[in-house]
Amino acid sequence: MGLSTKYEPKIVTGDAGYVLEDVPHLSDYISNLPTYPNPLQDNPAYSVVKQYFVNVDDTVAQKIVVHKTSPRGIHLRRAGPRQKVYFESDEVHACIVTCGGLCPGLNTVIREIVCGLNYMYGVKRILGIEGGYKGFYARNTIPLTPKVVNDIHKRGGTILGTSRGGHDTSKIVDSIQDRGINQVYIIGGDGTQKGASVIYEEIKRRGLKVAVAGIPKTIDNDIPVIDKSFGFDTAVEEAQRAINAAHVEAESVENGIGVVKLMGRYSGFIAMYATLASRDVDCCLIPESPFYLEGPGGLFEYMEKRLKENGHMIIVMAEGAGQELLSESMHTMDQQDASGNKLLQDVGLWISESIKDHFTKKRKMIINLKYIDPTYMIRAVPGNASDNVYCTLLAHSVVHGAFAGYTGFTVGPVNGRHAYIPFHRVTEKQNKVVITDRMWARLLSSTNQPSFLKPKDITVSKREKEPPTQLLDGENCTDDRKPVSKELVT
Amino acid sequence: MGLSTKYEPKIVTGDAGYVLEDVPHLSDYISNLPTYPNPLQDNPAYSVVKQYFVNVDDTVAQKIVVHKTSPRGIHLRRAGPRQKVYFESDEVHACIVTCGGLCPGLNTVIREIVCGLNYMYGVKRILGIEGGYKGFYARNTIPLTPKVVNDIHKRGGTILGTSRGGHDTSKIVDSIQDRGINQVYIIGGDGTQKGASVIYEEIKRRGLKVAVAGIPKTIDNDIPVIDKSFGFDTAVEEAQRAINAAHVEAESVENGIGVVKLMGRYSGFIAMYATLASRDVDCCLIPESPFYLEGPGGLFEYMEKRLKENGHMIIVMAEGAGQELLSESMHTMDQQDASGNKLLQDVGLWISESIKDHFTKKRKMIINLKYIDPTYMIRAVPGNASDNVYCTLLAHSVVHGAFAGYTGFTVGPVNGRHAYIPFHRVTEKQNKVVITDRMWARLLSSTNQPSFLKPKDITVSKREKEPPTQLLDGENCTDDRKPVSKELVT
Amino acid sequence: MGLSTKYEPKIVTGDAGYVLEDVPHLSDYISNLPTYPNPLQDNPAYSVVKQYFVNVDDTVAQKIVVHKTSPRGIHLRRAGPRQKVYFESDEVHACIVTCGGLCPGLNTVIREIVCGLNYMYGVKRILGIEGGYKGFYARNTIPLTPKVVNDIHKRGGTILGTSRGGHDTSKIVDSIQDRGINQVYIIGGDGTQKGASVIYEEIKRRGLKVAVAGIPKTIDNDIPVIDKSFGFDTAVEEAQRAINAAHVEAESVENGIGVVKLMGRYSGFIAMYATLASRDVDCCLIPESPFYLEGPGGLFEYMEKRLKENGHMIIVMAEGAGQELLSESMHTMDQQDASGNKLLQDVGLWISESIKDHFTKKRKMIINLKYIDPTYMIRAVPGNASDNVYCTLLAHSVVHGAFAGYTGFTVGPVNGRHAYIPFHRVTEKQNKVVITDRMWARLLSSTNQPSFLKPKDITVSKREKEPPTQLLDGENCTDDRKPVSKELVT
Amino acid sequence: MGLSTKYEPKIVTGDAGYVLEDVPHLSDYISNLPTYPNPLQDNPAYSVVKQYFVNVDDTVAQKIVVHKTSPRGIHLRRAGPRQKVYFESDEVHACIVTCGGLCPGLNTVIREIVCGLNYMYGVKRILGIEGGYKGFYARNTIPLTPKVVNDIHKRGGTILGTSRGGHDTSKIVDSIQDRGINQVYIIGGDGTQKGASVIYEEIKRRGLKVAVAGIPKTIDNDIPVIDKSFGFDTAVEEAQRAINAAHVEAESVENGIGVVKLMGRYSGFIAMYATLASRDVDCCLIPESPFYLEGPGGLFEYMEKRLKENGHMIIVMAEGAGQELLSESMHTMDQQDASGNKLLQDVGLWISESIKDHFTKKRKMIINLKYIDPTYMIRAVPGNASDNVYCTLLAHSVVHGAFAGYTGFTVGPVNGRHAYIPFHRVTEKQNKVVITDRMWARLLSSTNQPSFLKPKDITVSKREKEPPTQLLDGENCTDDRKPVSKELVT
Repeated sequence: MGLSTKYEPKIVTGDAGYVLEDVPHLSDYISNLPTYPNPLQDNPAYSVVKQYFVNVDDTVAQKIVVHKTSPRGIHLRRAGPRQKVYFESDEVHACIVTCGGLCPGLNTVIREIVCGLNYMYGVKRILGIEGGYKGFYARNTIPLTPKVVNDIHKRGGTILGTSRGGHDTSKIVDSIQDRGINQVYIIGGDGTQKGASVIYEEIKRRGLKVAVAGIPKTIDNDIPVIDKSFGFDTAVEEAQRAINAAHVEAESVENGIGVVKLMGRYSGFIAMYATLASRDVDCCLIPESPFYLEGPGGLFEYMEKRLKENGHMIIVMAEGAGQELLSESMHTMDQQDASGNKLLQDVGLWISESIKDHFTKKRKMIINLKYIDPTYMIRAVPGNASDNVYCTLLAHSVVHGAFAGYTGFTVGPVNGRHAYIPFHRVTEKQNKVVITDRMWARLLSSTNQPSFLKPKDITVSKREKEPPTQLLDGENCTDDRKPVSKELVT
Repeated sequence: MGLSTKYEPKIVTGDAGYVLEDVPHLSDYISNLPTYPNPLQDNPAYSVVKQYFVNVDDTVAQKIVVHKTSPRGIHLRRAGPRQKVYFESDEVHACIVTCGGLCPGLNTVIREIVCGLNYMYGVKRILGIEGGYKGFYARNTIPLTPKVVNDIHKRGGTILGTSRGGHDTSKIVDSIQDRGINQVYIIGGDGTQKGASVIYEEIKRRGLKVAVAGIPKTIDNDIPVIDKSFGFDTAVEEAQRAINAAHVEAESVENGIGVVKLMGRYSGFIAMYATLASRDVDCCLIPESPFYLEGPGGLFEYMEKRLKENGHMIIVMAEGAGQELLSESMHTMDQQDASGNKLLQDVGLWISESIKDHFTKKRKMIINLKYIDPTYMIRAVPGNASDNVYCTLLAHSVVHGAFAGYTGFTVGPVNGRHAYIPFHRVTEKQNKVVITDRMWARLLSSTNQPSFLKPKDITVSKREKEPPTQLLDGENCTDDRKPVSKELVT
Repeated sequence: MGLSTKYEPKIVTGDAGYVLEDVPHLSDYISNLPTYPNPLQDNPAYSVVKQYFVNVDDTVAQKIVVHKTSPRGIHLRRAGPRQKVYFESDEVHACIVTCGGLCPGLNTVIREIVCGLNYMYGVKRILGIEGGYKGFYARNTIPLTPKVVNDIHKRGGTILGTSRGGHDTSKIVDSIQDRGINQVYIIGGDGTQKGASVIYEEIKRRGLKVAVAGIPKTIDNDIPVIDKSFGFDTAVEEAQRAINAAHVEAESVENGIGVVKLMGRYSGFIAMYATLASRDVDCCLIPESPFYLEGPGGLFEYMEKRLKENGHMIIVMAEGAGQELLSESMHTMDQQDASGNKLLQDVGLWISESIKDHFTKKRKMIINLKYIDPTYMIRAVPGNASDNVYCTLLAHSVVHGAFAGYTGFTVGPVNGRHAYIPFHRVTEKQNKVVITDRMWARLLSSTNQPSFLKPKDITVSKREKEPPTQLLDGENCTDDRKPVSKELVT
Repeated sequence: MGLSTKYEPKIVTGDAGYVLEDVPHLSDYISNLPTYPNPLQDNPAYSVVKQYFVNVDDTVAQKIVVHKTSPRGIHLRRAGPRQKVYFESDEVHACIVTCGGLCPGLNTVIREIVCGLNYMYGVKRILGIEGGYKGFYARNTIPLTPKVVNDIHKRGGTILGTSRGGHDTSKIVDSIQDRGINQVYIIGGDGTQKGASVIYEEIKRRGLKVAVAGIPKTIDNDIPVIDKSFGFDTAVEEAQRAINAAHVEAESVENGIGVVKLMGRYSGFIAMYATLASRDVDCCLIPESPFYLEGPGGLFEYMEKRLKENGHMIIVMAEGAGQELLSESMHTMDQQDASGNKLLQDVGLWISESIKDHFTKKRKMIINLKYIDPTYMIRAVPGNASDNVYCTLLAHSVVHGAFAGYTGFTVGPVNGRHAYIPFHRVTEKQNKVVITDRMWARLLSSTNQPSFLKPKDITVSKREKEPPTQLLDGENCTDDRKPVSKELVT
């Protein structure tokens, strides 16, 4: 993984508790950088838009729900074009790389970085790095022009290809330096953004005039700070097909049970939103909310109740749900061979087998279980209209940021406004469904499923999590400390 | 229309420029109202959700983009369940009415008001008023239960039926009083919310314990203050089909021209977002941005240029675009018969005829124009997943508000948080695309279309609109005064 | 239009009333043509397929419904690869042209002619003629290779472009001769196939070794002899969206009326099948079945009855329906200006105005009429899976035919088997819905609409159409004389 | 399973090799049955349709591809309404049952049997048997009316519920007798039709006036004689989504391999047609065509070649493909535990593991394999427009047949015409893809995959299957003996 230096946050404070968590700038470590007027000023389309350029002092508030006397809290640098830029069009040599799993909208982001660079800033040299980070040390690259990318937003996947891992920071920065690249656009998830952060640190260490910008990509919506991640809407939409199919199958047979596994290794946003949107789901299981199968208050008891009432039931589960149960169950089956184990690592297959076992063997009930895993069918669709617009704004914001000389930053909407965000803010923790918050309560109310919390758990959890009294009011209304608890308006 | 009294805003102020525009409450005009503990407290699903109840002092900031020293600006009452409620479950007799044109998601809102009232608050008596406001003075109503509404969110339209007009305030309030209704849920657009406002005033005048709550419905997204209106996402998605079809048709012939008319009588949001999402559009015409056909800088000149460069072109227009040109053209054809006139009132047909006329007669060019009006095919689809979740939150927010004793309010997301908004804030002006703002500039940059502004216009418009210098900075970063200029993150 | 010679059918007769209507062959007018073994014999994929090559004597029966003693009737030459071919791979220079309106599947046909020629027969020189027949006398053509056409079947429209008219036979044949083209693939409708027929006659007159092959294209399914035309299935599928939308709109208002206009200038197949598939339609109007508006048994009377019973109603009409009523109505409005007339030529707009007029003015009823014209949204979609497979078979059949030395033929499925059909059989009359046959009766039974036939009409029509008694039995079971009356199994 | 008697085919012969395989009739075993005029004669919609009633002598030819001198071959009784019927409307008590797995269009068939019985023949008493055959001996049934079934064709699944097995013939016939049912409509696959056949035999043995009619249902299209089964088109269409997703996933990574498993236990029609429609598939594996993995000419060799050429590849396989390889592999892993075995019984998981094993362990190649099983998502969709029309005709044909007194029959299109078919013809063998025929050759040519036949196999297979010389010509053109080899025009 290589070189790493301690990150120093850039903090600016103001009156009434105003805090700005700023992003790095090329001028932080290179002195006497010349600036140029933004070429957009000569663009007839923009000449009439008086508010087109962002005021240099604009910041976006993270805290929205406030009291009369609340402190103002954390702010982020507003995204958008600046009147002065730190690159000349002819000087720019940009590259784009996509890493990690597929996500609807990837091609739209690529298209709009290319078109944004070309149409807005007159950049002609843009390289596509093939196959993720390790493409940096391959010989081939793909020259990207508006013509090449013209129709790609109508296709799923990424035309650049992708891969996991492969970020040898030194080799990547060598490659950037050798090719004379000075704007690096990195699209990827958590791990990728961490990689981008160390690439930035190394570039800064070498004193290069290279802007490093990240575009956060996670179909699971598990990146914090930003309102939601691109592709999420499309994923929730596509998940409806699988839930509908499970529902039709379950309704058509005696004691029909539909199990749908959705994406979400560490967070259950897709499962939760797909459940709320569908309203045909009887139980939604997510990694954030532990559950248990047997005994009073357990899943099997609830299932039996639903089957009796309704004749069928639908379970939606995130792939990361119930991993601790799965591990336990694996442990007891320790003698098993590798392929047996592989089977069990898919939590959907595991829970399906467990349910069949319980009902047919222990309860002697005839059940008809159908298990659906639509993961790849969801990931591979092109972005829907809403994600396409979102991806366009993301791409334009990141291009404006790089031209404005910012570096070591990622971008995304915060309370509806695009902002520049320091890498550490999106990598230091994951966005998770907060199960002591209202959105999860809404879900519980919609499915009527048990909370799977025993009274003891609740007490303990209350004791552990409750903040000291003097903070309670702030806690209750301060969003910047619990960004995930907010209502994601989609 | 009837009775009307002057509206008195409820304003609360605080430090550092904090302003709260509060909504009315039953206790404003009825004294000694008893309160009850919220029945949700006994619901096991909620018992573990410690932050479930909204703090009574929570407010939502309208201003997001700020400077270190900005005043805090306007805030709104946060939506959500309160610990104390002003209705007992058994006492409640609710009714729901839908007015105006169809919009994706209507049935989801109905479903979730019913399920919210029933499952969360134990309300058993819920009436559907049939066919809009005038259904209040009809004999028939539809009893609504969770079972009746169970699958309706998968269908377009409204199961209650709808109509325009018909709000005789006295007769409606008589009907409410006669039937013993004490919670009135009114789903509709601008005019409907104005009607709801006078219904509220009359109810207050009569001193009735009846909560009047509006749910803003406008497929055009032309309601101010709220982030976006339900159904809008679905509409933009469906509009892609029509634009794609126009594109295929235009590409397949010599000088192919596709004209797609989309909804938007007074605002061009659907046209703008559909254009941004599609990226196949060469020109987007909206009511907010005047244009002209002939001469330098006009539409015809641009079209001829695009046809030469590209062989085809696509125009997307909002139904309200170019109305002043249409009126002019109607005036010169004054002798025409009624049906001739009717033809011309459809701006899509009118512009199609004008284009054919210009190119075939004046320019002697062979063109192939195809005109598509997908309006009804867009309005009639069910809400997509994103709109379904949004409609659920809207419905739950409004139910919590009525139970908390608020009245004379409407509801919607403001910077991503649901808030209670006084009627006058959503009816006093319309949400419009601000053509001197960045989103429109993004569109111009995406289509490369002319701005249709002559230098003179720009100067004039600048002079007219520019605020005094001392306000410029605030202007530039104050959202509450120009809610429409913000980036709608979809 | 140019040269034309009288067509001489090639008829072969056999025992028991067997008749073969054969297609022309290059050897009919060129003597001593060498033959070659079919290169498919060396293809490993085919080497195991013992029945791959069609027996030279195979013919396809048009008559399927027979009695014990029926004569055998007309047969057509079976399509498919022959063991001997009349072209060497290196010698072939093929061209493809698409004419007329768009139709789902056009790109699949192009793709599969190219891939069929290349992969099956090793042909390297294939030209795309741009923009229909008149592209023959343009300079530019598009070289077509499997790579160029690889993804085109996923797009609507035609990558070759299209146009109407333009067949100056001499110039086209000059162009074919000048370019050294010896296989001409012509995709188009009725008029196009007539054009192909005269091109074939002229090529024969000049004695050229050029195979002329037509692929019938008509979204309306109005080409006789063949079971159905490509794109038809997709069109009926897409039409469901418009009918659904009309239904949702009509159901949501008082006296809601939905009018959907579908393609079908001379035949009502799309309207009929879309009605049967949807089952939400109350009345289907087609060109083959005259109707009238006023008076007993008329449309308005039926509409009023349906509105009373059901509160709403849906009319689906083919664009060619009611043209005689429209002409009459035009006549009485003779003084009108051009644009007024234009309005009325759209039968959907005309009937919508007539309905509004009748109900609001004469009957003083409030109605809510919504008119939907989805034509271009239907035509522009890519073919569905079923049409894609069909287009593949069509393309391969036509390529096999040209290589086998047949010319002056078109191709299509007859009773489920692909056959070579002389041009005159598909151009001499149109396929029409037979309203005295069972499919139309099924529709009437499904909608419960009136037949619009007065007893007098029925008598007259019976007298006119009824064949002499001695033929009645044959008539009743002989399909080759009324191909349109058969059940189109889709 | 119960009672069974030997089936006696009803054969009628005529001149020139004409053979009619007729279906049983109530009058075969009940004498002096009265007849009635068909009530459709009084229906105004039909009064004008002179050819509405099927001539009693109409038969449908199975043999379409003929030579001048071919014998006429086998014919079937034409479906459709007869002028005389054997039931009075008031007398009829019908029941409908659905058995086996889900299939798109099931609800449409139910709807149209109900509407056909009610609207065409005035039948008021129609029972839905719940949950398949075993529902006959349950107490509950569902009364079916046109209103109950009005919208069900827009939903997937079956409103009657379904199950496998459960046909205790005596108990079922007892139940039919006890309830006074005299028309039994049985919708199901191969096994279900066999069950229907013994039910018919038992009813005949008891001498009951009860018509037993089957509607063949098999999403796999593996029922012989009929052109294709309902739901098949929809299934092929839906399968495109999975193939597209696999393609996008595979294209986006290095050595991407997409494996899609489709339905087809004994026949590969869905896999074959989905492959032909998609054209993105590199290899299609079906039960009818044996293949092997290792060594020259094997799957792995071909895969490696495609990965080198193209960087990715897509395999589509029917669930029944390669079962013999799977069994072998299971045998060698005999020591494994139950859950390990279960994993391997899914041929898609098995082949995915085998491929990973081969390439990563033996070939030390990095591959990225994604396995998609869309089975339940395909089965659960509602029928598309084409299947809806088809299901309507099926339902009406079967109702006409029962009223005409036929019994012990199933129904379906034969060469595009609906016919009544004796049960034994659809149950005595399965429809299979004939891999020595043209459709499979088309597929091989489209994918360029190896035939997996070693020269020895081909010789053997030729020797075994080739008919004696004197029959060869007939063989080559006689369809009734190899119904599966024909081109399925979809």
